[in-house]
Amino acid sequence: MSGTMRAFVMTEVGRTAVVEKPIPVPGPEEAVVRTTAALICTSDVHTVKGALPVADGATLGHEAVGVVHALGSAVEGFTEGQRVAVNAVTPCFRCDYCQRGDTSQCGGPLGGYRYTAQIDGNMAEYFIVPAAKGNLAPIPDELSDEKAAYACDMLSTGIMGAENAAIEIGDTVAVFAQGPVGLCATIGAHRLGAGRIIAVESRPERQALAKQFGADDIVDFTAGDPVEQIMDITGGVGVDAAIEAFGFPQTFEACLRVTKAGGRVSNIGYHGENPNPLQIPLDAFGLGMNGKSIRTGLCTGGNLRMQRLFRLMLSDRVDPTPMTTHRFGFDRIEEAFELMASKSDNVIKPLVTF
Amino acid sequence: MSGTMRAFVMTEVGRTAVVEKPIPVPGPEEAVVRTTAALICTSDVHTVKGALPVADGATLGHEAVGVVHALGSAVEGFTEGQRVAVNAVTPCFRCDYCQRGDTSQCGGPLGGYRYTAQIDGNMAEYFIVPAAKGNLAPIPDELSDEKAAYACDMLSTGIMGAENAAIEIGDTVAVFAQGPVGLCATIGAHRLGAGRIIAVESRPERQALAKQFGADDIVDFTAGDPVEQIMDITGGVGVDAAIEAFGFPQTFEACLRVTKAGGRVSNIGYHGENPNPLQIPLDAFGLGMNGKSIRTGLCTGGNLRMQRLFRLMLSDRVDPTPMTTHRFGFDRIEEAFELMASKSDNVIKPLVTF
Amino acid sequence: MSGTMRAFVMTEVGRTAVVEKPIPVPGPEEAVVRTTAALICTSDVHTVKGALPVADGATLGHEAVGVVHALGSAVEGFTEGQRVAVNAVTPCFRCDYCQRGDTSQCGGPLGGYRYTAQIDGNMAEYFIVPAAKGNLAPIPDELSDEKAAYACDMLSTGIMGAENAAIEIGDTVAVFAQGPVGLCATIGAHRLGAGRIIAVESRPERQALAKQFGADDIVDFTAGDPVEQIMDITGGVGVDAAIEAFGFPQTFEACLRVTKAGGRVSNIGYHGENPNPLQIPLDAFGLGMNGKSIRTGLCTGGNLRMQRLFRLMLSDRVDPTPMTTHRFGFDRIEEAFELMASKSDNVIKPLVTF
Amino acid sequence: MSGTMRAFVMTEVGRTAVVEKPIPVPGPEEAVVRTTAALICTSDVHTVKGALPVADGATLGHEAVGVVHALGSAVEGFTEGQRVAVNAVTPCFRCDYCQRGDTSQCGGPLGGYRYTAQIDGNMAEYFIVPAAKGNLAPIPDELSDEKAAYACDMLSTGIMGAENAAIEIGDTVAVFAQGPVGLCATIGAHRLGAGRIIAVESRPERQALAKQFGADDIVDFTAGDPVEQIMDITGGVGVDAAIEAFGFPQTFEACLRVTKAGGRVSNIGYHGENPNPLQIPLDAFGLGMNGKSIRTGLCTGGNLRMQRLFRLMLSDRVDPTPMTTHRFGFDRIEEAFELMASKSDNVIKPLVTF
Repeated sequence: MSGTMRAFVMTEVGRTAVVEKPIPVPGPEEAVVRTTAALICTSDVHTVKGALPVADGATLGHEAVGVVHALGSAVEGFTEGQRVAVNAVTPCFRCDYCQRGDTSQCGGPLGGYRYTAQIDGNMAEYFIVPAAKGNLAPIPDELSDEKAAYACDMLSTGIMGAENAAIEIGDTVAVFAQGPVGLCATIGAHRLGAGRIIAVESRPERQALAKQFGADDIVDFTAGDPVEQIMDITGGVGVDAAIEAFGFPQTFEACLRVTKAGGRVSNIGYHGENPNPLQIPLDAFGLGMNGKSIRTGLCTGGNLRMQRLFRLMLSDRVDPTPMTTHRFGFDRIEEAFELMASKSDNVIKPLVTF
Repeated sequence: MSGTMRAFVMTEVGRTAVVEKPIPVPGPEEAVVRTTAALICTSDVHTVKGALPVADGATLGHEAVGVVHALGSAVEGFTEGQRVAVNAVTPCFRCDYCQRGDTSQCGGPLGGYRYTAQIDGNMAEYFIVPAAKGNLAPIPDELSDEKAAYACDMLSTGIMGAENAAIEIGDTVAVFAQGPVGLCATIGAHRLGAGRIIAVESRPERQALAKQFGADDIVDFTAGDPVEQIMDITGGVGVDAAIEAFGFPQTFEACLRVTKAGGRVSNIGYHGENPNPLQIPLDAFGLGMNGKSIRTGLCTGGNLRMQRLFRLMLSDRVDPTPMTTHRFGFDRIEEAFELMASKSDNVIKPLVTF
Repeated sequence: MSGTMRAFVMTEVGRTAVVEKPIPVPGPEEAVVRTTAALICTSDVHTVKGALPVADGATLGHEAVGVVHALGSAVEGFTEGQRVAVNAVTPCFRCDYCQRGDTSQCGGPLGGYRYTAQIDGNMAEYFIVPAAKGNLAPIPDELSDEKAAYACDMLSTGIMGAENAAIEIGDTVAVFAQGPVGLCATIGAHRLGAGRIIAVESRPERQALAKQFGADDIVDFTAGDPVEQIMDITGGVGVDAAIEAFGFPQTFEACLRVTKAGGRVSNIGYHGENPNPLQIPLDAFGLGMNGKSIRTGLCTGGNLRMQRLFRLMLSDRVDPTPMTTHRFGFDRIEEAFELMASKSDNVIKPLVTF
Repeated sequence: MSGTMRAFVMTEVGRTAVVEKPIPVPGPEEAVVRTTAALICTSDVHTVKGALPVADGATLGHEAVGVVHALGSAVEGFTEGQRVAVNAVTPCFRCDYCQRGDTSQCGGPLGGYRYTAQIDGNMAEYFIVPAAKGNLAPIPDELSDEKAAYACDMLSTGIMGAENAAIEIGDTVAVFAQGPVGLCATIGAHRLGAGRIIAVESRPERQALAKQFGADDIVDFTAGDPVEQIMDITGGVGVDAAIEAFGFPQTFEACLRVTKAGGRVSNIGYHGENPNPLQIPLDAFGLGMNGKSIRTGLCTGGNLRMQRLFRLMLSDRVDPTPMTTHRFGFDRIEEAFELMASKSDNVIKPLVTF
């Protein structure tokens, strides 16, 4: 089980490299997976820019699938060679936060997000899986690696955005920005009963995907104030729920402005690049009394979640693969990362195979 | 506003007739609608068999749409001539039950179900709408009368069955029987995030509709014990939730048997024809401790509900019209009713136009 | 039923007076109540300062009880002379917002708050009750007018603050400020299962009441940063939920800072006096991803709510009357109002009897 | 760490004995606790009668506290000698059921209930704690062993009964039978916001405790039909929720009969002694449509739950010790068990110290 492997790491803030590292060895409750496919995430780009306090040399990546390479002594119910996916969030399931149901906040704020932040990520030939019993998700034969990889973060986070919007059947929902997570929030709103989905996006290829994934109306924010456009579309009433999938103060405020009294704002955008606090305009907040709520969250982890998402894809209710705009072998990982960092060539998600 | 109209009534238990009645006059908070289309419901058949203590001569019917004929003095926000639909359940919205959120139990058990039971039904040329502000639902221009009529009971009840099943994204759900309400429960489970839907049904044409409406697996109960078949399909684990849409003791028990520990049983079947109490098998109930729940309900009423259902149809997420197997003019209402009573000619729903 | 009455009105921004007005006459669905007791609210003070766009001459007051003086023609189930209380929020129960469950947002933002804002308030010898069937709350014989008056706003709002904090059994809860609404939030947290309640307050008499109402710890914000003190008390972990009952940007931020990841902030403070938007510090918000939620609300209205609150007092679980620091006859209403406006003489709530 | 200990075991159905067993040795994720105090449970009596398929020689008991004797190699955050309590339910927290939130159904029906059923119980000088990180609950210094022991099952189960009744503030709640679990359900209903609690019980000493724990009304079922009495007390309306804490078909039916339309029945009674299925009377079930729900459950486990319950006792909100009617040393364990089995001498709970 020893030997070395290649890993894509952040050598220091702003710099990445492919390096050799030892193949990890699992602890009693852990597993090691040999990677077969992975998706690059905008969070990786944020990390390299310095968003998180990450150890120099930490491996990047948190959206990977593969086959079980080694199992810890206490791990039962899996076999070596089995195809598995692992969610970006790998909770312990046993701390106070996990018992409370906040598994993505395992041990404290954002604590379930271990890859890169606490342990090496999985943009490497092998990677560790903590609490393997709860985090190793066998991939059904009918499901491609590519589809399974979308469950690791994109679908889980996007659908969580819709879950946190507490959509009731037939609700109107606005989704701000149709990047990969916003597109998955559109999928989520569509699957969770929304009656009308308004997607805010300016890029034509993302608008087209939003339509394909369930959006009924497209609001191009370059063509006018999106708040006004949404109020027009809804006859001046506003929406029941708004999902912030952009990570900008203006969209956060816009979410509050377009929701009706009693409406819900679900935030899944990453606001780490904002230099200032977010602001809540008092009129859109009813001076603190208009029944609105704001909810935040981080990707729901664990293998039960993965099975739920797999079922949506097995039944063809959800197919996220049109988001894969580019494909690379792991030997071109740096090229793939640069593409994601530059957001050039209309990239949505680059898939890396091993 | 005076004059007479034709109404389809139950003259006594077991007998129906078309009679002349005065066109109703609205009280201050009421409206009168001139009927344009209506669907016949199995509940009408139950009523004629004597299921409810109904006054002799009561008009049947509770799934009707039309145009506003007259508005009570206190009713604002609507205009005569406007196309409207009215839910089968017309709550007052103000009693204790309604304030508690149990609007279908307005004033007491099943109390929101007023048509035929408390006031004349709407299988007539004109009908009364209580608490018009909350119960008159304008029909969008893009929506046919036929589609709107499905919102009055079928879609509202079926989707409520799925709502009461508390489906989480990717859940497995079994729906017992694919009559019109069961089919709509399948639609509901599909729209509310189920990952796999197992529909129990033996009739080929209903199986086909179930597939069309979102079912992934069909279990034919004439081909073997449906409990065993569902356990097989789910690898011995059972389903997360089961919906009883048949109204038989055996299917109620089967729902308990096929759900896993912690699972939910949602009952929308009418059990009024059972001579005996329903039974809960102790093993399938964990001796009272396996975390299962059973929830019952009656069609969710009110015009907000109608708008929600309209939105699902406006966006083409839901199209119930393949359930319309037969069409009649009101002059052939008795023929239509006999068809529904006999369940012959593969009838699912007969539409009556005025 | 004609005649005139005295009413305490806001003649223009900043000025009040007692004037003669006609005794109101009920519409078909309304009632008129002859006032016997009322509490003055800080909201009345805000209103006179110009917080709301109120018609000149509007009667103030929204926490009153009395006896039924006249009933509209369509109102059944009540009798003239019956003792009744009426919540500060009087929903129609039938609009979209009400049907959605947001009855305090009846018809739009804060729309259920009718007294003074939309119709004359009830700091008058007689007052109107809209939608009487849902808003007239008979007072049980065992309950004094004074106790019943606390249900109109204070208890309903304070307990709503605790409800919106989604307290689970044994949770730790911080309540910021122990004015009358904050004290009632402490009552609410205590009654809804909190395991430890930390009340933030500097005035000794309010600290004492907080203790009496269920607070376990008192944090005096004049003795040091309340955030630090709460973090100390909770061993550095923070609380499960925080209730903002002060209406200041700093306390709103403090609520976010003292809650753990996954925690809930419930806002019941009125932020109308802040010139700037509220701010969400990004670190206390996990950059938008730490699972926290923020919920706002306005006093839950309707007579079912009143009955619930009455039951808490009938069973001696709740006794709010220690908050009544001053008592006046209606002829001294201006003196009572000045006292509330100046917050002098350790006033908490002044009771006015008629 | 080797050596032997005394354990109170079921040698075969109907027979118990104190035997010598090896002191258990913890696996990597486990701990071993040296017992200091334990409560005898009616479930132990059921087990000896043959309720569960238990291995001959299995140690009885599941409500014990003690000090940490040994920690598995992977267990961090605890120290030997530390005072701890362990819930009767010890979930793995990582299986599908646990991730779904049904931790008491860990791995399958009732699967979180490990003591005696799957592993040796803790009516012994030492006992094993599975998944120690999530199941070892440090006891605060201020809390006696006796109080802590009540959190292991009685308080957790009783309060779960109230939680599953979905009590809203001011609700009316009936609790059927005031044995130890029923008394704790009364505590739970009282702590979770009930406005009026009706306790059904015939024994005077239990009636007195029920009053002390929050019951407002006592219904003696030997003095007349309890359903009629409850309907009388509630003015013919019935209660919002009923808790079945007796485990008899008649009380289960009575729960359905006394709840209003839309009401909730929460079952915590053990129905293993019934030879027949439970029955649902159709009239009390609205023919399957009156909005009622039935929910079952098993003691909520895990150390977060224990901390929650400890907080209720630390703040003197809850004191269950009046239920301790008898005290024994472990050398008199058989006498204590006989007392519980015979329900003689007005026993409620016997405490055994080691």
